[in-house]
Amino acid sequence: LQVLVIGGGDGGVLREVGRHSSVEQIDICEIDKMVVDVSKQFFPEVAIGYEDPRVTLHIGDGVAFLKAVPKGTYDAVIVDSSDPIGPAQELFEKPFFQSVANALRPGGVVCTQAESIWLHMHIIEDIVANCRQIFKGSVNYAWTTVPTYPSGVIGFMLCSTEGPSVDFKNPVSSIDTNTDYNKARGPLKFYNPEIHTAAFCLPAFAKKVIDAKAK
Amino acid sequence: LQVLVIGGGDGGVLREVGRHSSVEQIDICEIDKMVVDVSKQFFPEVAIGYEDPRVTLHIGDGVAFLKAVPKGTYDAVIVDSSDPIGPAQELFEKPFFQSVANALRPGGVVCTQAESIWLHMHIIEDIVANCRQIFKGSVNYAWTTVPTYPSGVIGFMLCSTEGPSVDFKNPVSSIDTNTDYNKARGPLKFYNPEIHTAAFCLPAFAKKVIDAKAK
Repeated sequence: LQVLVIGGGDGGVLREVGRHSSVEQIDICEIDKMVVDVSKQFFPEVAIGYEDPRVTLHIGDGVAFLKAVPKGTYDAVIVDSSDPIGPAQELFEKPFFQSVANALRPGGVVCTQAESIWLHMHIIEDIVANCRQIFKGSVNYAWTTVPTYPSGVIGFMLCSTEGPSVDFKNPVSSIDTNTDYNKARGPLKFYNPEIHTAAFCLPAFAKKVIDAKAK
Repeated sequence: LQVLVIGGGDGGVLREVGRHSSVEQIDICEIDKMVVDVSKQFFPEVAIGYEDPRVTLHIGDGVAFLKAVPKGTYDAVIVDSSDPIGPAQELFEKPFFQSVANALRPGGVVCTQAESIWLHMHIIEDIVANCRQIFKGSVNYAWTTVPTYPSGVIGFMLCSTEGPSVDFKNPVSSIDTNTDYNKARGPLKFYNPEIHTAAFCLPAFAKKVIDAKAK
Protein backbone atom coordinates (compact mmCIF):
# COMPACT_ATOMS: atom_id res chain seq x y z
CA LEU A 1 0.00 0.00 0.00
CA GLN A 2 1.09 3.56 -0.81
CA VAL A 3 0.15 6.20 1.76
CA LEU A 4 0.36 9.99 1.62
CA VAL A 5 0.21 12.23 4.69
CA ILE A 6 -0.52 15.95 4.18
CA GLY A 7 0.56 17.99 7.21
CA GLY A 8 1.25 15.85 10.25
CA GLY A 9 4.79 17.23 10.54
CA ASP A 10 5.16 16.09 14.16
CA GLY A 11 5.43 12.49 12.95
CA GLY A 12 2.61 11.02 15.05
CA VAL A 13 0.49 9.93 12.07
CA LEU A 14 3.62 8.40 10.49
CA ARG A 15 4.24 6.42 13.67
CA GLU A 16 0.73 4.97 13.60
CA VAL A 17 0.67 4.28 9.84
CA GLY A 18 4.00 2.53 10.30
CA ARG A 19 2.41 -0.10 12.56
CA HIS A 20 0.85 -1.72 9.50
CA SER A 21 3.06 -4.21 7.68
CA SER A 22 0.87 -3.93 4.55
CA VAL A 23 2.19 -0.38 3.99
CA GLU A 24 5.10 -0.24 1.51
CA GLN A 25 5.59 3.49 1.08
CA ILE A 26 4.73 6.53 3.19
CA ASP A 27 5.10 9.99 1.65
CA ILE A 28 4.58 13.03 3.84
CA CYS A 29 4.20 16.61 2.63
CA GLU A 30 4.59 19.14 5.44
CA ILE A 31 4.71 22.88 4.68
CA ASP A 32 6.72 23.91 7.75
CA LYS A 33 10.14 22.29 8.28
CA MET A 34 10.37 23.80 11.75
CA VAL A 35 7.45 21.62 12.92
CA VAL A 36 9.48 18.56 11.96
CA ASP A 37 12.66 19.82 13.63
CA VAL A 38 10.92 20.88 16.84
CA SER A 39 9.12 17.55 17.10
CA LYS A 40 12.37 15.62 16.60
CA GLN A 41 14.04 17.69 19.31
CA PHE A 42 11.31 17.89 21.93
CA PHE A 43 8.86 15.05 21.17
CA PRO A 44 11.09 12.14 20.14
CA GLU A 45 8.41 9.56 21.04
CA VAL A 46 6.12 11.22 18.44
CA ALA A 47 8.82 12.01 15.84
CA ILE A 48 9.94 8.35 15.94
CA GLY A 49 7.58 7.99 12.98
CA TYR A 50 10.35 9.48 10.78
CA GLU A 51 12.73 6.62 11.62
CA ASP A 52 10.69 4.24 9.49
CA PRO A 53 12.68 3.50 6.28
CA ARG A 54 9.43 3.56 4.27
CA VAL A 55 8.98 7.29 5.00
CA THR A 56 9.95 10.05 2.53
CA LEU A 57 9.60 13.64 3.76
CA HIS A 58 8.69 16.39 1.28
CA ILE A 59 8.83 19.96 2.63
CA GLY A 60 6.29 22.00 0.69
CA ASP A 61 2.69 22.99 0.04
CA GLY A 62 0.34 20.03 0.19
CA VAL A 63 -2.04 21.62 -2.31
CA ALA A 64 0.73 21.96 -4.94
CA PHE A 65 2.14 18.52 -4.10
CA LEU A 66 -1.22 16.84 -4.68
CA LYS A 67 -1.79 18.63 -7.98
CA ALA A 68 1.45 17.10 -9.28
CA VAL A 69 0.61 13.54 -8.16
CA PRO A 70 -0.16 11.17 -11.09
CA LYS A 71 -3.76 9.91 -11.07
CA GLY A 72 -4.33 6.79 -8.95
CA THR A 73 -1.00 6.85 -7.10
CA TYR A 74 -2.09 6.33 -3.50
CA ASP A 75 -4.20 3.81 -1.60
CA ALA A 76 -4.74 6.19 1.30
CA VAL A 77 -4.37 9.94 1.90
CA ILE A 78 -4.42 11.31 5.44
CA VAL A 79 -4.83 15.06 5.91
CA ASP A 80 -3.62 16.07 9.39
CA SER A 81 -4.32 19.78 9.18
CA SER A 82 -5.04 22.76 11.41
CA ASP A 83 -8.33 24.70 11.29
CA PRO A 84 -9.76 26.18 8.04
CA ILE A 85 -8.61 29.72 8.82
CA GLY A 86 -5.36 31.07 7.33
CA PRO A 87 -2.77 28.66 5.90
CA ALA A 88 -4.92 25.50 6.09
CA GLN A 89 -8.06 27.03 4.54
CA GLU A 90 -7.47 25.53 1.08
CA LEU A 91 -7.36 22.03 2.63
CA PHE A 92 -11.11 22.29 3.30
CA GLU A 93 -12.13 23.46 -0.17
CA LYS A 94 -13.49 21.58 -3.13
CA PRO A 95 -10.45 21.89 -5.49
CA PHE A 96 -8.29 20.29 -2.81
CA PHE A 97 -10.71 17.41 -2.31
CA GLN A 98 -10.74 16.97 -6.10
CA SER A 99 -6.93 16.70 -6.12
CA VAL A 100 -7.12 14.10 -3.34
CA ALA A 101 -9.69 12.07 -5.28
CA ASN A 102 -7.48 12.17 -8.41
CA ALA A 103 -4.42 11.03 -6.45
CA LEU A 104 -6.28 7.98 -5.09
CA ARG A 105 -6.65 4.64 -6.89
CA PRO A 106 -10.23 3.37 -7.44
CA GLY A 107 -11.64 2.51 -4.00
CA GLY A 108 -8.81 4.42 -2.32
CA VAL A 109 -9.54 6.13 0.99
CA VAL A 110 -9.02 9.56 2.51
CA CYS A 111 -9.15 10.72 6.12
CA THR A 112 -9.23 14.49 6.67
CA GLN A 113 -9.46 16.56 9.83
CA ALA A 114 -13.10 17.69 10.09
CA GLU A 115 -13.52 19.87 13.18
CA SER A 116 -15.73 19.63 16.29
CA ILE A 117 -19.46 18.90 16.23
CA TRP A 118 -19.80 21.09 19.35
CA LEU A 119 -18.26 24.18 17.75
CA HIS A 120 -18.26 23.90 13.96
CA MET A 121 -21.45 22.28 12.65
CA HIS A 122 -21.71 24.95 9.93
CA ILE A 123 -18.20 24.12 8.68
CA ILE A 124 -18.85 20.37 8.94
CA GLU A 125 -22.04 20.75 6.93
CA ASP A 126 -20.03 22.28 4.06
CA ILE A 127 -17.22 19.71 4.27
CA VAL A 128 -19.70 16.83 4.12
CA ALA A 129 -21.53 18.39 1.16
CA ASN A 130 -18.23 18.91 -0.71
CA CYS A 131 -17.03 15.38 0.01
CA ARG A 132 -20.34 13.92 -1.12
CA GLN A 133 -19.89 15.65 -4.48
CA ILE A 134 -16.24 14.65 -4.96
CA PHE A 135 -15.93 11.17 -3.43
CA LYS A 136 -18.25 8.76 -5.19
CA GLY A 137 -17.67 5.84 -2.80
CA SER A 138 -18.68 6.07 0.87
CA VAL A 139 -18.76 9.34 2.82
CA ASN A 140 -18.60 9.12 6.61
CA TYR A 141 -18.10 11.41 9.59
CA ALA A 142 -16.40 10.06 12.71
CA TRP A 143 -15.27 11.73 15.93
CA THR A 144 -13.25 11.10 19.03
CA THR A 145 -12.20 12.90 22.20
CA VAL A 146 -8.97 14.88 22.59
CA PRO A 147 -8.94 16.60 25.98
CA THR A 148 -6.56 19.38 24.92
CA TYR A 149 -8.66 20.47 21.91
CA PRO A 150 -11.33 23.18 22.19
CA SER A 151 -14.62 21.46 23.22
CA GLY A 152 -12.68 18.23 23.90
CA VAL A 153 -13.47 16.50 20.62
CA ILE A 154 -12.27 16.33 17.03
CA GLY A 155 -13.86 14.91 13.89
CA PHE A 156 -12.77 13.24 10.66
CA MET A 157 -14.19 12.79 7.19
CA LEU A 158 -13.56 9.27 5.97
CA CYS A 159 -14.34 8.86 2.28
CA SER A 160 -13.58 6.44 -0.52
CA THR A 161 -13.41 6.94 -4.28
CA GLU A 162 -15.53 5.13 -6.82
CA GLY A 163 -14.31 1.53 -7.11
CA PRO A 164 -14.28 -1.43 -4.72
CA SER A 165 -16.66 -0.39 -1.93
CA VAL A 166 -15.19 0.55 1.46
CA ASP A 167 -17.12 0.04 4.70
CA PHE A 168 -15.23 2.18 7.19
CA LYS A 169 -17.37 1.04 10.12
CA ASN A 170 -16.35 -2.60 9.71
CA PRO A 171 -12.59 -2.79 9.00
CA VAL A 172 -11.38 -5.73 6.88
CA SER A 173 -8.34 -6.24 9.13
CA SER A 174 -8.73 -6.58 12.89
CA ILE A 175 -7.49 -3.46 14.63
CA ASP A 176 -5.80 -5.38 17.43
CA THR A 177 -3.94 -7.92 15.30
CA ASN A 178 -3.03 -5.60 12.43
CA THR A 179 -0.73 -3.47 14.56
CA ASP A 180 1.97 -5.98 15.38
CA TYR A 181 4.53 -4.45 13.06
CA ASN A 182 7.22 -2.39 14.69
CA LYS A 183 6.38 -3.41 18.24
CA ALA A 184 9.11 -1.15 19.60
CA ARG A 185 6.58 1.69 19.38
CA GLY A 186 4.61 0.05 22.17
CA PRO A 187 1.02 -1.13 22.30
CA LEU A 188 -1.91 1.11 21.41
CA LYS A 189 -2.95 3.10 24.49
CA PHE A 190 -6.23 4.52 23.19
CA TYR A 191 -7.47 2.90 20.00
CA ASN A 192 -9.20 -0.48 19.93
CA PRO A 193 -12.12 -2.09 18.07
CA GLU A 194 -14.75 -0.64 20.45
CA ILE A 195 -13.40 2.89 20.08
CA HIS A 196 -13.41 2.46 16.29
CA THR A 197 -17.10 1.51 16.37
CA ALA A 198 -17.99 4.32 18.78
CA ALA A 199 -16.33 6.91 16.53
CA PHE A 200 -19.14 6.54 13.98
CA CYS A 201 -21.94 6.96 16.56
CA LEU A 202 -23.20 10.53 16.31
CA PRO A 203 -25.46 12.57 18.59
CA ALA A 204 -28.97 13.21 17.25
CA PHE A 205 -28.29 16.86 16.34
CA ALA A 206 -25.15 16.05 14.34
CA LYS A 207 -26.57 12.92 12.70
CA LYS A 208 -29.50 14.93 11.39
CA VAL A 209 -27.30 17.53 9.66
CA ILE A 210 -24.63 15.10 8.42
CA ASP A 211 -27.07 12.47 7.11
CA ALA A 212 -28.98 15.16 5.22
CA LYS A 213 -25.81 16.34 3.46
CA ALA A 214 -24.27 12.89 3.00
CA LYS A 215 -27.24 11.51 1.04
CA LEU B 1 -41.44 2.68 38.66
CA GLN B 2 -40.12 4.66 41.65
CA VAL B 3 -37.08 6.86 40.96
CA LEU B 4 -34.84 8.80 43.34
CA VAL B 5 -32.52 11.60 42.24
CA ILE B 6 -29.73 12.68 44.63
CA GLY B 7 -28.45 16.16 43.76
CA GLY B 8 -29.55 17.32 40.32
CA GLY B 9 -31.15 20.45 41.77
CA ASP B 10 -31.23 22.23 38.43
CA GLY B 11 -34.05 19.91 37.32
CA GLY B 12 -32.42 18.60 34.15
CA VAL B 13 -32.35 14.97 35.28
CA LEU B 14 -36.00 15.29 36.37
CA ARG B 15 -36.91 16.57 32.91
CA GLU B 16 -35.33 13.55 31.24
CA VAL B 17 -36.66 10.96 33.74
CA GLY B 18 -40.09 12.51 33.20
CA ARG B 19 -40.06 11.50 29.51
CA HIS B 20 -40.75 7.91 30.53
CA SER B 21 -44.42 7.03 31.03
CA SER B 22 -43.42 3.95 33.08
CA VAL B 23 -42.24 6.22 35.91
CA GLU B 24 -44.87 6.72 38.64
CA GLN B 25 -42.93 8.64 41.29
CA ILE B 26 -39.82 10.82 41.21
CA ASP B 27 -38.26 11.87 44.51
CA ILE B 28 -35.38 14.32 44.45
CA CYS B 29 -33.11 15.15 47.38
CA GLU B 30 -31.05 18.31 46.79
CA ILE B 31 -28.93 19.77 49.59
CA ASP B 32 -28.95 23.37 48.32
CA LYS B 33 -32.32 25.08 47.81
CA MET B 34 -30.64 28.01 46.08
CA VAL B 35 -29.63 25.73 43.19
CA VAL B 36 -33.32 24.97 42.64
CA ASP B 37 -34.39 28.61 42.89
CA VAL B 38 -31.63 29.89 40.60
CA SER B 39 -32.41 27.23 38.00
CA LYS B 40 -36.13 28.08 38.07
CA GLN B 41 -35.33 31.77 37.62
CA PHE B 42 -32.57 31.64 35.01
CA PHE B 43 -32.81 28.20 33.34
CA PRO B 44 -36.55 27.58 32.98
CA GLU B 45 -36.04 25.12 30.13
CA VAL B 46 -33.99 22.94 32.51
CA ALA B 47 -36.08 23.55 35.66
CA ILE B 48 -39.20 22.52 33.71
CA GLY B 49 -38.49 19.09 35.21
CA TYR B 50 -40.08 20.33 38.47
CA GLU B 51 -43.43 20.94 36.76
CA ASP B 52 -44.04 17.19 36.51
CA PRO B 53 -46.75 16.21 39.05
CA ARG B 54 -44.87 12.98 39.82
CA VAL B 55 -41.96 14.98 41.31
CA THR B 56 -41.49 15.54 45.08
CA LEU B 57 -38.63 17.80 46.14
CA HIS B 58 -36.82 17.14 49.43
CA ILE B 59 -34.30 19.77 50.49
CA GLY B 60 -31.65 18.03 52.58
CA ASP B 61 -28.56 15.85 52.76
CA GLY B 62 -28.73 12.94 50.33
CA VAL B 63 -26.62 10.73 52.57
CA ALA B 64 -29.05 11.13 55.49
CA PHE B 65 -32.08 10.82 53.18
CA LEU B 66 -30.87 7.50 51.80
CA LYS B 67 -30.12 6.08 55.25
CA ALA B 68 -33.79 6.65 56.19
CA VAL B 69 -35.20 5.00 53.02
CA PRO B 70 -36.88 1.62 53.71
CA LYS B 71 -35.09 -1.32 52.06
CA GLY B 72 -36.16 -1.99 48.47
CA THR B 73 -38.05 1.28 47.90
CA TYR B 74 -36.68 2.41 44.54
CA ASP B 75 -36.33 0.93 41.07
CA ALA B 76 -33.67 3.45 40.09
CA VAL B 77 -31.38 5.89 41.91
CA ILE B 78 -29.59 8.61 39.96
CA VAL B 79 -26.75 10.48 41.68
CA ASP B 80 -26.10 13.79 39.91
CA SER B 81 -23.25 15.06 42.05
CA SER B 82 -20.27 17.38 41.89
CA ASP B 83 -16.67 16.16 42.30
CA PRO B 84 -15.50 14.09 45.31
CA ILE B 85 -13.86 17.04 47.05
CA GLY B 86 -15.70 18.92 49.81
CA PRO B 87 -19.50 18.56 50.16
CA ALA B 88 -19.92 15.72 47.63
CA GLN B 89 -17.05 13.56 48.93
CA GLU B 90 -19.31 11.16 50.86
CA LEU B 91 -21.25 10.40 47.67
CA PHE B 92 -18.20 8.51 46.36
CA GLU B 93 -17.57 6.41 49.48
CA LYS B 94 -18.56 2.86 50.33
CA PRO B 95 -21.15 3.58 53.07
CA PHE B 96 -23.09 5.76 50.61
CA PHE B 97 -23.04 3.07 47.92
CA GLN B 98 -24.26 0.61 50.59
CA SER B 99 -27.21 2.91 51.40
CA VAL B 100 -28.03 3.13 47.69
CA ALA B 101 -27.97 -0.67 47.37
CA ASN B 102 -30.29 -1.02 50.39
CA ALA B 103 -32.74 1.51 48.98
CA LEU B 104 -33.01 -0.40 45.69
CA ARG B 105 -35.35 -3.33 45.02
CA PRO B 106 -33.69 -6.59 43.81
CA GLY B 107 -32.38 -5.91 40.30
CA GLY B 108 -32.77 -2.16 40.84
CA VAL B 109 -30.32 0.14 39.10
CA VAL B 110 -28.11 3.08 40.04
CA CYS B 111 -26.37 5.68 37.91
CA THR B 112 -23.73 7.82 39.65
CA GLN B 113 -21.45 10.55 38.38
CA ALA B 114 -18.02 8.92 37.92
CA GLU B 115 -15.53 11.52 36.71
CA SER B 116 -13.30 11.80 33.63
CA ILE B 117 -11.08 9.00 32.32
CA TRP B 118 -8.63 11.69 31.09
CA LEU B 119 -8.18 13.28 34.52
CA HIS B 120 -9.31 10.93 37.28
CA MET B 121 -8.38 7.31 36.54
CA HIS B 122 -7.15 6.88 40.15
CA ILE B 123 -10.55 7.99 41.50
CA ILE B 124 -12.43 5.87 38.94
CA GLU B 125 -10.37 2.83 39.92
CA ASP B 126 -11.57 3.21 43.54
CA ILE B 127 -15.20 3.87 42.57
CA VAL B 128 -15.29 0.76 40.38
CA ALA B 129 -13.72 -1.38 43.12
CA ASN B 130 -16.25 -0.09 45.69
CA CYS B 131 -19.20 -0.65 43.37
CA ARG B 132 -18.02 -4.16 42.56
CA GLN B 133 -18.10 -4.97 46.28
CA ILE B 134 -21.48 -3.40 46.98
CA PHE B 135 -23.56 -4.03 43.83
CA LYS B 136 -23.86 -7.74 43.22
CA GLY B 137 -25.57 -7.44 39.82
CA SER B 138 -23.79 -5.82 36.87
CA VAL B 139 -21.13 -3.11 37.25
CA ASN B 140 -20.42 -0.91 34.22
CA TYR B 141 -18.56 2.28 33.39
CA ALA B 142 -19.87 4.54 30.63
CA TRP B 143 -18.79 7.96 29.39
CA THR B 144 -19.88 10.77 27.15
CA THR B 145 -18.69 14.19 26.02
CA VAL B 146 -19.65 17.48 27.68
CA PRO B 147 -17.72 20.34 26.07
CA THR B 148 -17.93 22.61 29.13
CA TYR B 149 -16.46 20.05 31.55
CA PRO B 150 -12.71 19.84 32.24
CA SER B 151 -11.19 17.47 29.62
CA GLY B 152 -14.49 17.52 27.71
CA VAL B 153 -15.86 14.23 29.02
CA ILE B 154 -17.73 12.83 32.01
CA GLY B 155 -18.29 9.27 33.19
CA PHE B 156 -20.98 7.25 34.95
CA MET B 157 -21.11 4.09 37.02
CA LEU B 158 -24.15 2.03 36.07
CA CYS B 159 -24.77 -0.83 38.48
CA SER B 160 -27.58 -3.17 39.42
CA THR B 161 -28.32 -5.01 42.65
CA GLU B 162 -28.60 -8.77 43.04
CA GLY B 163 -31.88 -9.93 41.47
CA PRO B 164 -33.19 -9.96 37.90
CA SER B 165 -30.10 -9.37 35.75
CA VAL B 166 -29.71 -5.99 34.06
CA ASP B 167 -27.81 -5.58 30.77
CA PHE B 168 -27.18 -1.84 30.57
CA LYS B 169 -25.61 -2.07 27.13
CA ASN B 170 -28.80 -3.45 25.57
CA PRO B 171 -31.82 -1.54 26.94
CA VAL B 172 -35.12 -3.46 27.16
CA SER B 173 -37.09 -0.45 25.88
CA SER B 174 -36.07 1.31 22.69
CA ILE B 175 -34.53 4.68 23.47
CA ASP B 176 -36.29 6.43 20.62
CA THR B 177 -39.81 5.14 21.24
CA ASN B 178 -39.69 5.21 25.03
CA THR B 179 -39.48 8.98 25.22
CA ASP B 180 -42.83 9.95 23.79
CA TYR B 181 -44.28 11.00 27.12
CA ASN B 182 -44.48 14.70 27.70
CA LYS B 183 -43.64 15.73 24.18
CA ALA B 184 -43.83 19.39 25.13
CA ARG B 185 -40.24 19.05 26.34
CA GLY B 186 -39.14 18.60 22.75
CA PRO B 187 -37.26 15.80 21.05
CA LEU B 188 -33.93 14.50 22.33
CA LYS B 189 -31.12 16.61 20.86
CA PHE B 190 -28.15 14.47 21.86
CA TYR B 191 -29.11 10.99 23.08
CA ASN B 192 -30.04 8.16 20.70
CA PRO B 193 -29.44 4.40 20.46
CA GLU B 194 -26.01 4.81 18.81
CA ILE B 195 -24.81 7.23 21.51
CA HIS B 196 -26.03 4.79 24.17
CA THR B 197 -23.95 2.00 22.63
CA ALA B 198 -20.89 4.22 22.19
CA ALA B 199 -21.00 5.26 25.87
CA PHE B 200 -19.83 1.78 26.90
CA CYS B 201 -16.89 1.70 24.45
CA LEU B 202 -13.74 2.51 26.43
CA PRO B 203 -10.21 3.39 25.28
CA ALA B 204 -7.60 0.67 25.83
CA PHE B 205 -5.96 2.38 28.82
CA ALA B 206 -9.28 2.84 30.67
CA LYS B 207 -10.68 -0.57 29.76
CA LYS B 208 -7.59 -2.23 31.22
CA VAL B 209 -7.95 -0.55 34.62
CA ILE B 210 -11.75 -0.76 34.81
CA ASP B 211 -12.02 -4.39 33.69
CA ALA B 212 -9.36 -5.39 36.23
CA LYS B 213 -11.34 -3.80 39.08
CA ALA B 214 -14.79 -4.78 37.82
CA LYS B 215 -14.05 -8.51 37.73
